[in-house]
Amino acid sequence: MPTYTPPLKDLDFVLHDVLRVHESDTPGYADLDRDFTGAILDEAGKIARDVLIPLNAVGDKEGCTLENGVVRTPTGFKEAFDVIREGGWTGLGADPEYGGQGMPYILGTAVGEMHVSANLAFNMYPGLTNGAYEAIHAHASDELKAKFLPKMVTCEWTGTMNLTEPHCGTDLGLMRSKAEPAGDGSYKITGQKIFISAGEHDMADNIIHLVLAKIPGGPDGVKGISLFIVPKFLVNEDGALGARNGVACGMLEEKMGIHGNSTCVMNYDEAEGYLVGEEHKGLRAMFTMMNAARLGVGLQGLGQASVAYQNAVEYTRERLQGRDVTGVKNPDGPADPLIVHPDVRRSLMDQKSFIEGARAFILWGSTLLDAGDLAGDKDAEGLVSLMTPVIKGFLTDKGFDMTVQAQQLYGGHGYIEETGASQFVRDARIAMIYEGANGVQALDLVGRKLASDGGKHIMAFFEIVKNFIKDNDGDEALKTDFLTPLKAASKDMQAAAMYFMAEAPKNPNAALSGSSDFMHLFGHVVLGLMWARMAKAAQDALANGASDVAFYETKLATGRYYMARSLPETALRLARITTGADPVMGLAAEAF
Amino acid sequence: MPTYTPPLKDLDFVLHDVLRVHESDTPGYADLDRDFTGAILDEAGKIARDVLIPLNAVGDKEGCTLENGVVRTPTGFKEAFDVIREGGWTGLGADPEYGGQGMPYILGTAVGEMHVSANLAFNMYPGLTNGAYEAIHAHASDELKAKFLPKMVTCEWTGTMNLTEPHCGTDLGLMRSKAEPAGDGSYKITGQKIFISAGEHDMADNIIHLVLAKIPGGPDGVKGISLFIVPKFLVNEDGALGARNGVACGMLEEKMGIHGNSTCVMNYDEAEGYLVGEEHKGLRAMFTMMNAARLGVGLQGLGQASVAYQNAVEYTRERLQGRDVTGVKNPDGPADPLIVHPDVRRSLMDQKSFIEGARAFILWGSTLLDAGDLAGDKDAEGLVSLMTPVIKGFLTDKGFDMTVQAQQLYGGHGYIEETGASQFVRDARIAMIYEGANGVQALDLVGRKLASDGGKHIMAFFEIVKNFIKDNDGDEALKTDFLTPLKAASKDMQAAAMYFMAEAPKNPNAALSGSSDFMHLFGHVVLGLMWARMAKAAQDALANGASDVAFYETKLATGRYYMARSLPETALRLARITTGADPVMGLAAEAF
Repeated sequence: MPTYTPPLKDLDFVLHDVLRVHESDTPGYADLDRDFTGAILDEAGKIARDVLIPLNAVGDKEGCTLENGVVRTPTGFKEAFDVIREGGWTGLGADPEYGGQGMPYILGTAVGEMHVSANLAFNMYPGLTNGAYEAIHAHASDELKAKFLPKMVTCEWTGTMNLTEPHCGTDLGLMRSKAEPAGDGSYKITGQKIFISAGEHDMADNIIHLVLAKIPGGPDGVKGISLFIVPKFLVNEDGALGARNGVACGMLEEKMGIHGNSTCVMNYDEAEGYLVGEEHKGLRAMFTMMNAARLGVGLQGLGQASVAYQNAVEYTRERLQGRDVTGVKNPDGPADPLIVHPDVRRSLMDQKSFIEGARAFILWGSTLLDAGDLAGDKDAEGLVSLMTPVIKGFLTDKGFDMTVQAQQLYGGHGYIEETGASQFVRDARIAMIYEGANGVQALDLVGRKLASDGGKHIMAFFEIVKNFIKDNDGDEALKTDFLTPLKAASKDMQAAAMYFMAEAPKNPNAALSGSSDFMHLFGHVVLGLMWARMAKAAQDALANGASDVAFYETKLATGRYYMARSLPETALRLARITTGADPVMGLAAEAF
Repeated sequence: MPTYTPPLKDLDFVLHDVLRVHESDTPGYADLDRDFTGAILDEAGKIARDVLIPLNAVGDKEGCTLENGVVRTPTGFKEAFDVIREGGWTGLGADPEYGGQGMPYILGTAVGEMHVSANLAFNMYPGLTNGAYEAIHAHASDELKAKFLPKMVTCEWTGTMNLTEPHCGTDLGLMRSKAEPAGDGSYKITGQKIFISAGEHDMADNIIHLVLAKIPGGPDGVKGISLFIVPKFLVNEDGALGARNGVACGMLEEKMGIHGNSTCVMNYDEAEGYLVGEEHKGLRAMFTMMNAARLGVGLQGLGQASVAYQNAVEYTRERLQGRDVTGVKNPDGPADPLIVHPDVRRSLMDQKSFIEGARAFILWGSTLLDAGDLAGDKDAEGLVSLMTPVIKGFLTDKGFDMTVQAQQLYGGHGYIEETGASQFVRDARIAMIYEGANGVQALDLVGRKLASDGGKHIMAFFEIVKNFIKDNDGDEALKTDFLTPLKAASKDMQAAAMYFMAEAPKNPNAALSGSSDFMHLFGHVVLGLMWARMAKAAQDALANGASDVAFYETKLATGRYYMARSLPETALRLARITTGADPVMGLAAEAF
């Protein structure tokens, strides 16, 4: 049975030694001192460790069931949700006006990492509610907000996001769901939505669906899409629940993983809905919080990698098989533990160095989101917007790979469901797909973000790297192991960006053929930067006489691994990118 | 519902245009002319397309069930097995003395690719029977062979391989199963074996278990292991089935995939067994056919990649989503098909170029196996032995990656089980694990094979590459796109081999830390060589006025993709390898 150990020390290190959040002048950050974040994260970690991970396999095995329109969630999910609700965790970052605690986004990221590590399928219920809350909070009328938000902040009512239709995934312009004005200011919503996570379940009194649909007579394509609130139960003036609305779950999907989450086909039949924001401006409203939502999915990649790694480490320590080629390590036992073998160690280092780098990346991204949202810092917003497809795409691609590596360490025992290694792989797989499949993230990055605001944000990123290298130029220890490889990787990325700038105007396919490679190249450079920053912080801590010497020395050795063995992938990515469109588009579509 | 199209044209191309098997002087190859192989493969392909693939999802969904000691296979499996048996497919490569057709191994490889593509879980039943047949055929007494082989050749009786025990996977020296001499020449086998594929089922009259166990008083460790035949039902002198033997399936494992195959815990309780070969020489006997068995698993990696790719291509042609950035391709439809998008094309090219390269690699490896077995060619045997861990490890690692890439092209539809994309991923996953996990393959390659016979076989491989480049030096078309990248990749591989030779004597961990990287580096160089040979064959065919111009031009374009975009990975692998043991072994085992 898998277990989960909250990475409290590492979160503290990144928040305070590396990002120094308590010194930031972003509003709200002054409260985030070590004691405060430590206390919050300790409590959040206990829930992950004691409440959520024990239910992870239960959710996978039992899944959700649909009977007579009622969806039952796995045993124990409702009780766990009550723990989350009663602890106030659902409103951590929400507006105090609606009952939230108004904490900066970064705290939710740190809490969220632990909760999605321990139980991804479960965490989608409050997670999607939070997404719906954000969209309503940003765009709905005060009346709608007052009516729906307080109960969504507490998760007494949960939320959903309804975009996809059977024929219409990424290309939302193909949408067919209709919203007819009812004459009283409300709309009648009709259509079918698919892949609706948490669309129906038995853990909340009401479910507030956010639905994209077209008002007849509006513009074609995505410009004619509007956003609506469609509650499962209508809400009376006094806040009491009224009649059942015309929305129902028609089917649950059989999926590869996240079985604990109900993935619903939702049928809308003249359901009463309320316009959020302006007519035909629904897409903008739905995607306002896109950076945060995508960062949240990147967090899932990290989270599944992290919990899979932790359990694999335990297995390689306990499983005795073979002997260390350099000399017996466990002379009293029949064999040495798996962890003595270099290729096992190589795999664990891949995982560990990715996970810790990814954690720093996501927390750094969260500080930028907060700086944008809370301090109105446009540069920070532009930078995180640029990096959002990398956070989502790179971290979920790699996160999945890491769960596969973790599973591999179990040998045959990883393939049977009993050990739980397979579930981490199957659950992690979805994060590469939803919230914009990773190919779409790469397209967004290279086709749109890279050149946005005249390339200002990518230049700002290169400046950050350059300045860090320059500022630490005199540090010989840092230079050899961290700054030199970072510089080389950053140069590869610059060369790739230059290639795109030169080629894209002539042939967009030359740039887009290398889009996934660039997303990975960018991801590696960011992780290289994170490792250089972490190494610097670790060195400083050691120089300042930090007591936990082993922690900081481990940090440095882990970083050296990343810089030496993972970061050089940038050269391969650059080589691929500069082959352009010819190899990729060399065949006619009929030739496959 | 997934479909499967037998790659008949491509098999014909590799067998006859590239490998020119009909011109080989390996005994039996003279019969393998185009007409003959074409006729056989056409029939085998029909079974894959019409009988096996329709049952693939059935097997996944229903799985196997155990009730009162009886294992039921999924609906339709027995009828499919009858088709395979009646067609004589189970004895294709078997000794005519025992009812086989005595065909070279390579023909079984080509047939096998199609059958494992269409239904991996099903194909394990005859596949394991063939493995058990081979071990018995090579090592058992004439009496045992006469008693068991004829019915195993026809698969009236199926076979299993029993190695693993709960505490003992790769490290067979830890084995506890015992074989006590019964006094009449037979033995009493007692112990528990796990992960026994096809250990119990309802598709054959008898099951012949090959079981490794220790005869008390023998040497410690692997030197005290003997091999036994343990039939489910004892066989009387007249060949009729006698009493039930003391062996039973105690449990079926819940697995990530290959649900159609019964993965059994087998309990032996003083079961009657017959020694195969000599006492204490069981490991050698069991592993005689190891190269062939591992090549068979490599074939599974290729097969799952191939069928996943085929279905993904269809999906990307049919699914309309978004528009080609260079201009609308489907003006009459609401959107263009997915296949117009460069990142989709990139993924399909990754898959296609891997699959066709892997097919050539495995078929080349099969010619070497045949040359070793049928013509006693020791050099061929040494070379294929060197490459066996690459065939197994590289092709299953990459094969799995390709199924993941194929699944990704479906977006959310790939995550739900309905489309079948998930099953290919889940089924392909096992091939990285069984028959020696890929980390063990890498260890075998770098720790043992590389230096075997004084490094003679790796030198022979480099000679083959060098000679091909030299022989075609004047061909400018081949040179730029194929020979130059092949030369660079081969140089990377030589540098890695030199590094190992220099470092391993001082520090074995320096070599073993790069073992998985070397396995991949080697794999890419072989695929580069295969693509260069295929390109040459395609050019020659075009020059000779071949009618199917599109096929050969597609082949050349696909090869150019591999050389330009996949092969450069060798440089990254070399860079990792030469960082040696320091980054990998930089942390104490306690620091993870």
